[in-house]
Amino acid sequence: MSTASETGLASKGVKGFMDENFLLQTESARVLYHEFAAKMPVIDYHCHLPPDEIAQDKIFPNLTQIWLYGDHYKWRAMRSNGVDESYCTGSKPDKEKFGKWAATVPYTMRNPLYHWTHLELRRYFNEYDILGPANADRIYDEAGEKLNTREYSVRSLLKKMDVRVVCTTDDPLDSLEYHQQIKAEEIDLQVLPTFRPDKFILIENPSYTDFVSRLGGIVNSNIESFESLTAALRQRADFFASLGGRLADHGLERISAVEAGPEEADRVFKKRLAGQTLSPDEIEAFKSALLHELGTMYHALGWTQQFHLGAMRNNNRRALRTLGPDTGWDSIGDYSQAGALSRFLGRLDEHDQLAKTVIYNLNPADNEIIATMIGNFNDGSVAGKIQFGSGWWFMDQKHGMENQMNALSNMGLLSRFVGMLTDSRSFLSFPRHEYFRRILCNLYGNDIENGELPNDIGWIGKTIQDICYNNAKAYFKF
Amino acid sequence: MSTASETGLASKGVKGFMDENFLLQTESARVLYHEFAAKMPVIDYHCHLPPDEIAQDKIFPNLTQIWLYGDHYKWRAMRSNGVDESYCTGSKPDKEKFGKWAATVPYTMRNPLYHWTHLELRRYFNEYDILGPANADRIYDEAGEKLNTREYSVRSLLKKMDVRVVCTTDDPLDSLEYHQQIKAEEIDLQVLPTFRPDKFILIENPSYTDFVSRLGGIVNSNIESFESLTAALRQRADFFASLGGRLADHGLERISAVEAGPEEADRVFKKRLAGQTLSPDEIEAFKSALLHELGTMYHALGWTQQFHLGAMRNNNRRALRTLGPDTGWDSIGDYSQAGALSRFLGRLDEHDQLAKTVIYNLNPADNEIIATMIGNFNDGSVAGKIQFGSGWWFMDQKHGMENQMNALSNMGLLSRFVGMLTDSRSFLSFPRHEYFRRILCNLYGNDIENGELPNDIGWIGKTIQDICYNNAKAYFKF
Amino acid sequence: MSTASETGLASKGVKGFMDENFLLQTESARVLYHEFAAKMPVIDYHCHLPPDEIAQDKIFPNLTQIWLYGDHYKWRAMRSNGVDESYCTGSKPDKEKFGKWAATVPYTMRNPLYHWTHLELRRYFNEYDILGPANADRIYDEAGEKLNTREYSVRSLLKKMDVRVVCTTDDPLDSLEYHQQIKAEEIDLQVLPTFRPDKFILIENPSYTDFVSRLGGIVNSNIESFESLTAALRQRADFFASLGGRLADHGLERISAVEAGPEEADRVFKKRLAGQTLSPDEIEAFKSALLHELGTMYHALGWTQQFHLGAMRNNNRRALRTLGPDTGWDSIGDYSQAGALSRFLGRLDEHDQLAKTVIYNLNPADNEIIATMIGNFNDGSVAGKIQFGSGWWFMDQKHGMENQMNALSNMGLLSRFVGMLTDSRSFLSFPRHEYFRRILCNLYGNDIENGELPNDIGWIGKTIQDICYNNAKAYFKF
Repeated sequence: MSTASETGLASKGVKGFMDENFLLQTESARVLYHEFAAKMPVIDYHCHLPPDEIAQDKIFPNLTQIWLYGDHYKWRAMRSNGVDESYCTGSKPDKEKFGKWAATVPYTMRNPLYHWTHLELRRYFNEYDILGPANADRIYDEAGEKLNTREYSVRSLLKKMDVRVVCTTDDPLDSLEYHQQIKAEEIDLQVLPTFRPDKFILIENPSYTDFVSRLGGIVNSNIESFESLTAALRQRADFFASLGGRLADHGLERISAVEAGPEEADRVFKKRLAGQTLSPDEIEAFKSALLHELGTMYHALGWTQQFHLGAMRNNNRRALRTLGPDTGWDSIGDYSQAGALSRFLGRLDEHDQLAKTVIYNLNPADNEIIATMIGNFNDGSVAGKIQFGSGWWFMDQKHGMENQMNALSNMGLLSRFVGMLTDSRSFLSFPRHEYFRRILCNLYGNDIENGELPNDIGWIGKTIQDICYNNAKAYFKF
Repeated sequence: MSTASETGLASKGVKGFMDENFLLQTESARVLYHEFAAKMPVIDYHCHLPPDEIAQDKIFPNLTQIWLYGDHYKWRAMRSNGVDESYCTGSKPDKEKFGKWAATVPYTMRNPLYHWTHLELRRYFNEYDILGPANADRIYDEAGEKLNTREYSVRSLLKKMDVRVVCTTDDPLDSLEYHQQIKAEEIDLQVLPTFRPDKFILIENPSYTDFVSRLGGIVNSNIESFESLTAALRQRADFFASLGGRLADHGLERISAVEAGPEEADRVFKKRLAGQTLSPDEIEAFKSALLHELGTMYHALGWTQQFHLGAMRNNNRRALRTLGPDTGWDSIGDYSQAGALSRFLGRLDEHDQLAKTVIYNLNPADNEIIATMIGNFNDGSVAGKIQFGSGWWFMDQKHGMENQMNALSNMGLLSRFVGMLTDSRSFLSFPRHEYFRRILCNLYGNDIENGELPNDIGWIGKTIQDICYNNAKAYFKF
Repeated sequence: MSTASETGLASKGVKGFMDENFLLQTESARVLYHEFAAKMPVIDYHCHLPPDEIAQDKIFPNLTQIWLYGDHYKWRAMRSNGVDESYCTGSKPDKEKFGKWAATVPYTMRNPLYHWTHLELRRYFNEYDILGPANADRIYDEAGEKLNTREYSVRSLLKKMDVRVVCTTDDPLDSLEYHQQIKAEEIDLQVLPTFRPDKFILIENPSYTDFVSRLGGIVNSNIESFESLTAALRQRADFFASLGGRLADHGLERISAVEAGPEEADRVFKKRLAGQTLSPDEIEAFKSALLHELGTMYHALGWTQQFHLGAMRNNNRRALRTLGPDTGWDSIGDYSQAGALSRFLGRLDEHDQLAKTVIYNLNPADNEIIATMIGNFNDGSVAGKIQFGSGWWFMDQKHGMENQMNALSNMGLLSRFVGMLTDSRSFLSFPRHEYFRRILCNLYGNDIENGELPNDIGWIGKTIQDICYNNAKAYFKF
């Protein structure tokens, strides 16, 4: 890969690559970012960080383990670039894996990975070179040396990014022992569990009855009815709440919301426990009833419920068999979302049982549907009660975030948005908050300079600080 | 809210907020707007203005009544901002309601309400301050004084905006007495009724038989068959036509277009009158047959039929029960549109019964579907015979209008577009025509300055005047 | 139509209309285009050029015949402009038809036809005037004179655009005699057949059994079973391969991919041959099984399979009856695509039978679905094994191509893209490769100048040359 100076191009107006004004196209955007947004702390209200690694304040041995292990975004890019699986999830040595990643990086230009990679190298390792085959070894070695110090323990990494709250994503079966341990330490970082009961919703799963019996074991009860199931889940949610949990999350293709109550759900549940085959209608009825019960429970707890909608998972059966889920074979589905969302939220709202809700949407063709749906249940009781979640997974990039924020702006109130989250499994993903903030400031900055917003930096700066931090703090009550 | 000067920011390139070149990013756009577009009169060929208020030339007592009453856009924004319902549709005093709206306005930045609000304050009241809590009382009082004069009667307001034609939206049951009254006055403004027979299409509505019996009363006939129903509707349409009506409109989620003729419709209709429950297939058959009959009727009358597709209404059952419809609880649906539209238009076209047609689309993900669908039935008989209607409701904003115009440009002929309409219930909404025209001129201006269009201001200026006024005048034959 | 000088507008910053830097907004884009992209030869790996006209090296008598005959894009525009069918597909004299087209051109501003028209006039005829009624006769006559020379034979036209490979689209029933003839001549142009077996998939077609019996005649076998059908198709594919064919193509609304094997397909096929009516489920089963069989066959041949998804064809029944298919009455459908694509590709992949695949998408709302779907089957075996095809048909324009490339960039690797194809029936369409290249360079150029990519013209220039030519050459093995 040649460098700019080698090519002899003397482009005068060219902005430095990812310089301090990265993504900030106007002076107004620069002021908004540097004087308002950059200084705000970080609340990461939804992520997949492993609590045990925070509890033990883990030190990673090298860049491959902290950066490539578990990162299915990078694996997908490598595979698309013709890299063999042995260098992705396979058994090749860590340094060779890193080499393959470094050789792929130049091919990722225009993909968000290109920006994430260089933001992370800069912010954590002060490494300003552009990663490629020529410097892969040097960067691997130098970063490795740093990683092997206490300054790069996972808590240090979180502190470096001024992270104040981390909400992990946890199974109702989880003992939350690490959350307890962290809480007991009284450190300057809230690490809170999030209740994600997906496995008790997906009744068609072959392991469903095992999950139920494990849940019964934990709550010391025989779960033989829908009522005892929801009671057990409620017991676990109370336990989550006792450790500061105040969010639930659900990773569903789409909401189920047919008219079905506890009796129908009970009948289906018992049929399932008895080993009988369920019809699609029965499955839908059960899910609908359980989601409704859970929704009323979250409302009673004062929680916020989150829904991550639109993913089509495990498309590659060969890979699912050999590598398991969450290894990079998922994509965007084209499910119909509007009707069920309307019924689900409407049924809870009708009896004033609708909790604060964040809806994340993976299919950008549905952005305007979600942006208008939330307005149907914003009833004036809480500012921004129903939220359109930030661009998620494949949408967690410049166009995706701009589209989400523009839809929300045009059809709702961007000013009441609770903003960014990493949704990440990696301790090196926190510069995505910076990425988001730059994009946010740029949107407002462009509007100011175009005369579409008044040049009122004070008010707009405050609005941006709200979206970066204050709104989430107030909304979730951290 | 601080002002720009307070913040000390000295941004040199910043355009004045909503100045005379608002939304006009290039010199070409400015010339096109100021020299060509701005001078054209207004034809508002679809709106929801109340004809009685035009007939009586109503004077509104204060800003809340003319501006907030009935405006569900503002209510939604207020509710999303945490404002209690009593200040929206409730019983709080008008001035307090206005205060709540004024306090919400700064939170609406980037929402079209922010632009509409300030355009309307400027164009009608010459008020150039930015509305907020600090000046709410002053603006309320000063505007109220103006409103209480003959210069701010509704006809004066329409004249101020150079409105030449207003097409209201009317029920077949309506006596049209106000249209008759206005017509008799021979004023310099055409106020024409639009035939909107939705309530006779939506056969599943619990009040359906009441509507039918009221229709029977008006036309002096017992409506006991599909034939007598369509005859009665035809009689009403003739009456509308006698008062200058030349448009029909339909607010449907989606078109119904299964193969079903008058006999099947007659059977279903009689079953409904007999109080029996209809199956979904029967409902669909009835609607399909009636829409087809209506289509042939519009064609015989030389009318234009309009379809507003894609809204998902009344999502909030609690609000529907307490506040009724059209109070701000509607959103965008994800209905499948292409197949039924193709069948509906195709069946009429096949026997040369297809009237001029305008299709409005609420879901922007369907823009390209509509933009290409219209081309299937533009058969050379009339320039722009089938129209893709302007960005509607939630799409009636800069991005929405740009997307609609870009889709139409890329897949059809923007030059033959009949342009903007307010679709509004408010006499203060007419600056939306200005808003549209600025956006339109900006699109052409950018293309000229980028070298994507020739610098032929004469031709492009004429094209813009066509889209602003001439095309609608010729197409609808006003 | 007035010219720029007549209007007296002196816009200083205005770029010349379609000048040498057309669509190149930055200096970086200009360098990338002029120094890297422009010099690359053309591989047109999917088009509808008639091989007989290449074999005979046809000379067209006038501009109407080479430019308007068969061009349903132009017909649609003319019809939308109110031009009678007799000037489109009808019997009016060629010169009058051209006059009607010329009169329509000024109304096509902002439609890609406006750019295509003037690019083609410039690149082939060195004609720099803007086409309109005033110069229609002159341009028609002058272009006609040129066309009547050997320099404008179809092979000369291809050579003028530096076309090295043309893949036509051919019927399994085709004798490929013209491909054989061209191959025998050993000219400096590869003209290769593409296997498009649609008519053997669409079992519901009334002429299906005729097609089968004609296929039987060609392969000298009685086709009475699914096995003999696939064997016959395999024999034809081998014949295509013997003439250099290495692609298949399928023009389907959507993929069929229910679980159905050869036995079920055999049963349905025999029922069809017996003249019995098939149920929708049977049709779907047959198509699913045949597509799967064809997929394994392409894999065995080392071919690439292409799928053109999302068109809704022949919407206008009147026109279908009088003019036949492919005459400009098609549009974009809103079919659900994700599930079936996932199952179709997954089933082939599971047993390592998945050929290289290019998926073209007509509905831009599905771009992100396709862009993420391809990643599910990029398994590291071939760089860019599953491709998201370039903007197609209605999407073959600036916004459409930008959206496709941005989706591919954000969710995959643009660097591995096989790039542009004309998909055209016209020998004058090859400047669309130039159009695409300018847009491609502009995307990268903007990112460089914004600081979103490093100013590494060497590497990015190489990437662009890959997308313009090298990737396709390596991927298809030309």
